[in-house]
Amino acid sequence: MSKVSIDATDSLPAEDFKAVFRGHPGGVSVITADAGQGPVALTATSVASISVDPPLLVFSISALSSASDVLSRAQTVVVHFLDVHDIELAKLGAASGVDRFAQDQTWTRLSTGETVFDNVRAWVRCEVIERVQAGTSTVFVARALQSHIERDSEPGQPSHGLVYHNRAWHRLDENSLLTS
Amino acid sequence: MSKVSIDATDSLPAEDFKAVFRGHPGGVSVITADAGQGPVALTATSVASISVDPPLLVFSISALSSASDVLSRAQTVVVHFLDVHDIELAKLGAASGVDRFAQDQTWTRLSTGETVFDNVRAWVRCEVIERVQAGTSTVFVARALQSHIERDSEPGQPSHGLVYHNRAWHRLDENSLLTS
Repeated sequence: MSKVSIDATDSLPAEDFKAVFRGHPGGVSVITADAGQGPVALTATSVASISVDPPLLVFSISALSSASDVLSRAQTVVVHFLDVHDIELAKLGAASGVDRFAQDQTWTRLSTGETVFDNVRAWVRCEVIERVQAGTSTVFVARALQSHIERDSEPGQPSHGLVYHNRAWHRLDENSLLTS
Repeated sequence: MSKVSIDATDSLPAEDFKAVFRGHPGGVSVITADAGQGPVALTATSVASISVDPPLLVFSISALSSASDVLSRAQTVVVHFLDVHDIELAKLGAASGVDRFAQDQTWTRLSTGETVFDNVRAWVRCEVIERVQAGTSTVFVARALQSHIERDSEPGQPSHGLVYHNRAWHRLDENSLLTS
């Protein structure tokens, strides 16, 4: 764990910063982890690919998240990549004070122990290789070990993109496609 | 600059990793920087908010990007947050071998020296506070200093979200909204 020191005297006010990102669309993921005391899950829009060889991705978690403590100790995580069919899972992972694993029939454990929600568009099992504490959040760098694609996103396939934008959910399909 | 060491023997193959992220939607940004020898710009879908107080964001840049060398030295960057009106700039920043600053009338310099493209939905001037080298890319953590919103994204406002998904551009508006 490395830690960034910050001189915040000339920082942009939080409200101005939030206004910019509210209008910035984000793909939707659910991250699960288990450090040995039971699984946690949370919805995130910060997952991004940073390198394909080696296969690395990045995401960040607020210290205020109920999943933060487990994520600070877990050696592996599963990042679930959601499409519109997975919107109920997206809402479940974004709700507070809810047991995300109350329904046994919606998730399973891999042979390696990690918790995976069933029937999501795709998931990637990852090893956490770096944590950078920055402000009130932690930035995770993780290396992909294993993947599964349930629904592909090629044109004509049954997957339709799910996006969070301006506090609402949006669907990507033929109608949202920009032709130029 | 910190560096992550990686044991890649059991990593997911690059093709499998790319297939997962191809179907993951991303908001579109253009990042500009100038380390004293002229400005560079590139289009990125990896920008995410990680904290609002202090206001921090993260993005990553491949070492293969033509902007990589300048970004490794720049102390500040400007992150432009694009909407559908800015799609030509998105394409310009994603094209290779193109001078992004050939047209003088499309960009200006702030009093602090950074390069800003005109008329984008919003931009944030940031100080780079951490660089983490991970595989063939660098993850940047940056602190927001100043912002400008040209078009707001509230319902009824003129801004419509721009998303990159499955190698195509998509538009977010009333028609893509999911109602539940």
